[in-house]
Amino acid sequence: MADGMSPSQRALLRLGRSLGDSTVRTDPSSCETFARDESETEPVTPAGVVHASTAEHVRQTLAVCHDEGVCVVPRGGATGRTGGATVIRPDTVVLDTTPLAAVKHLDRANQTVVVEPGVRTASLHALAESEGLFFPPDPLSAEWSCLGGNVAENAGGPRAFKYGVTREYTRVIEAALMGGETVRAGHRTSKGVAGYDVASLLVGSEGTLAVFTELTLRLVALPPEVRTLVAGFADARDAGRAVASLVARGLTPRCVELVDEVCCDVMRAHDATVLPAGARAVLVIECDGHHPAAVDAELDRVADVCDAVGARHLERARTRDEREALWRVRRVMSRSLRATAAHKLSEDVVVPRSEVPALLDAVRVIAARESIVMPTYGHAGDGNLHVNVLWNTPDERPRVDRAIEALFRATLDLGGTLSGEHGIGVLKAPYLPWEQSPALLDLQQRIKAAFDPRGLLNPGKVFTPGGAPSHRGC
Amino acid sequence: MADGMSPSQRALLRLGRSLGDSTVRTDPSSCETFARDESETEPVTPAGVVHASTAEHVRQTLAVCHDEGVCVVPRGGATGRTGGATVIRPDTVVLDTTPLAAVKHLDRANQTVVVEPGVRTASLHALAESEGLFFPPDPLSAEWSCLGGNVAENAGGPRAFKYGVTREYTRVIEAALMGGETVRAGHRTSKGVAGYDVASLLVGSEGTLAVFTELTLRLVALPPEVRTLVAGFADARDAGRAVASLVARGLTPRCVELVDEVCCDVMRAHDATVLPAGARAVLVIECDGHHPAAVDAELDRVADVCDAVGARHLERARTRDEREALWRVRRVMSRSLRATAAHKLSEDVVVPRSEVPALLDAVRVIAARESIVMPTYGHAGDGNLHVNVLWNTPDERPRVDRAIEALFRATLDLGGTLSGEHGIGVLKAPYLPWEQSPALLDLQQRIKAAFDPRGLLNPGKVFTPGGAPSHRGC
Repeated sequence: MADGMSPSQRALLRLGRSLGDSTVRTDPSSCETFARDESETEPVTPAGVVHASTAEHVRQTLAVCHDEGVCVVPRGGATGRTGGATVIRPDTVVLDTTPLAAVKHLDRANQTVVVEPGVRTASLHALAESEGLFFPPDPLSAEWSCLGGNVAENAGGPRAFKYGVTREYTRVIEAALMGGETVRAGHRTSKGVAGYDVASLLVGSEGTLAVFTELTLRLVALPPEVRTLVAGFADARDAGRAVASLVARGLTPRCVELVDEVCCDVMRAHDATVLPAGARAVLVIECDGHHPAAVDAELDRVADVCDAVGARHLERARTRDEREALWRVRRVMSRSLRATAAHKLSEDVVVPRSEVPALLDAVRVIAARESIVMPTYGHAGDGNLHVNVLWNTPDERPRVDRAIEALFRATLDLGGTLSGEHGIGVLKAPYLPWEQSPALLDLQQRIKAAFDPRGLLNPGKVFTPGGAPSHRGC
Repeated sequence: MADGMSPSQRALLRLGRSLGDSTVRTDPSSCETFARDESETEPVTPAGVVHASTAEHVRQTLAVCHDEGVCVVPRGGATGRTGGATVIRPDTVVLDTTPLAAVKHLDRANQTVVVEPGVRTASLHALAESEGLFFPPDPLSAEWSCLGGNVAENAGGPRAFKYGVTREYTRVIEAALMGGETVRAGHRTSKGVAGYDVASLLVGSEGTLAVFTELTLRLVALPPEVRTLVAGFADARDAGRAVASLVARGLTPRCVELVDEVCCDVMRAHDATVLPAGARAVLVIECDGHHPAAVDAELDRVADVCDAVGARHLERARTRDEREALWRVRRVMSRSLRATAAHKLSEDVVVPRSEVPALLDAVRVIAARESIVMPTYGHAGDGNLHVNVLWNTPDERPRVDRAIEALFRATLDLGGTLSGEHGIGVLKAPYLPWEQSPALLDLQQRIKAAFDPRGLLNPGKVFTPGGAPSHRGC
């Protein structure tokens, strides 16, 4: 180039001039912080980082990078497990939206809240609950994850069994497109069908279509009554049968979480008191509501179902402290597991709820065949299980890859999907064509081009480099 | 043209040869049946009709018409109120999907049902309930509307207050694109984030993106306990205040329906027994659930709230017969109102729930200013009111138009949207730019082009002819 600068250097120089050096960082130590997220994706250091603290910072970054042909990776709490916030080539600008973190307005009368994307999920939980309101989506990274990332990934969590996922709580998305244009998609109101449902399309789009600058989220009335039951079983398969039986009876606890044998041991190593002694696999089941007798009655029915499929222990958390101790251990399960090996991949496959026992069987067979540890836990009520693969040395990697491929095949054969809440990101992109037809993949790539014709926004995510226009641009 | 035939004649000839004359009709009497729907749109007779009884009929129609450059209007029960199923120019093929009406599979264990788009909504209600299951969306045209149309319009209905709209019950959409290609979008499972949420984008797209050939819908457990309360008020404004108060207290009855003074008279003319004598405006409130005491307790709280804002009558439906009599009259409200004048436009604006009293004030002011009757009823719990305009002679039309424009302005000023469930169709297309920015409209038109690059599918709907590629093609 005439000025000896790469496109990203030019873009960062222009942005530094207009936004200031404290917002635009190119020093190596700043950039290295953004080389990885919570996934096992290969680290790549970006050319620079824009710490956006206003919507205007976001728009200018997308305008300048579009103009210069530079790739942009938007990034929130970076708690993703599939590499959605990682950089795939160094000539990239990371757009850090964590400073864009104001709660702009809580509307008590209409049960909505307007937030910027950098607000932490747990902050919103606390704020809503202090007002007698409730934001149901509860990814277990809630202490660290940001709402922008939750919307971009359509985050779930244990309470999705009753309350649904982030999409159901997203009313309006204000977002900037590559080029810097702003769109406001969705409706403030509880219903609204004017035009296409662009807001729902943006939910779960993994930062590849637009960068969010403001979110209007729906809240519900805080259910004051919560009851928790821990049901212990002889093995995970019995626990899985209990799940299928609960679903078939139409029961709707807010959470139905499964913890298999290995994961029970990990939980006990963390806090020996939280699980019934002797239970090899457990279900953690929580019912909530507004009427104490109704919640008690629902928990009784749940206990009866567990009993009928052979639960060996049925313990109720008697106090809020007991319940919170249990969830504290459950929340750090992913990190606790990670600490037991050098490497961990956490999958989040989903099968129809009735197929949970069949999926658990498949996991057992695959783990035995590949001589590998595959601890499994997760949102069994939704058929959404976190199947983990742990390994320590590079020579184990081929068996890990075979195990994961076999898991995906089994999931799809059972009518399932590759991801319930972690997204496709980088790590699952090669497998998406196993689930989706060429026609559907092509259609999605045309949709991507409608938002980002040069393919500069979060390239390498969701679609494999072969077909997606997102890769041709960079 | 060399063969003297128009493109639609050629397309119909080709389709007749491959699909047979009983499937492809071009005789005037067959075609005239398809010139209008339930809206006040100007009737236009299409060149031909394909009565699709298989998915292959749909695909072939879209392949041939794409090839010949002929516009296609997909059509289900044609119960829409904004002209979504109408023809805007005669050189068009109507694709009638009502013969595609099989219920393919009811999965009790996973609470899903696979249907073809021509299944009537009420048939699914009956089928689900016979299995102890429940399909919540309940547009009041359910006896006549088809599920394909419900999904295309994202239909709501009274029960949306608690249960949400059709989008929340749509898991998988198999659809054919212009050109004949098939895509399956969405997930059979209760969660799923693999790829973009194309299924949600198709929901509410008003037949402009694709034609549905199969739908996998979610069901829930049938709530066995239902309680109905009719609260009578001095006027609609007091009823509106009660709605705001119910919402602010976090109560979630399944329905909160408002009926204003004029509509109460219409209901009484139909059946004098269903409303409390002397009530000038009413709320019909229904609570449901699985636990009798909880449902009773919720209805008691609802009654207390109504009492506190000055309800003059609080009558509970004591029997299922009483409840059904009430809903029978409510269901035919739109047709009963239509019978009182030569012409009726039924709008379905939505405002934030707390703004229902302000919207009712605005309607009163507009009606008085234009000396016009504007009876109002609807899903007040969702802030979604059907404001009707009745007139008899052409000279009233300018006042009607002014009233509707003033209603839309007032709705948008209150933070609302032009449509909660009827869609934009033809009739509201000129007003969509009042609500949405040029950037958002342009983006939607690029999305439209990703599905239908020649702009042949259901042209003239949603977007005004000026900007939408859907119009340039025909």
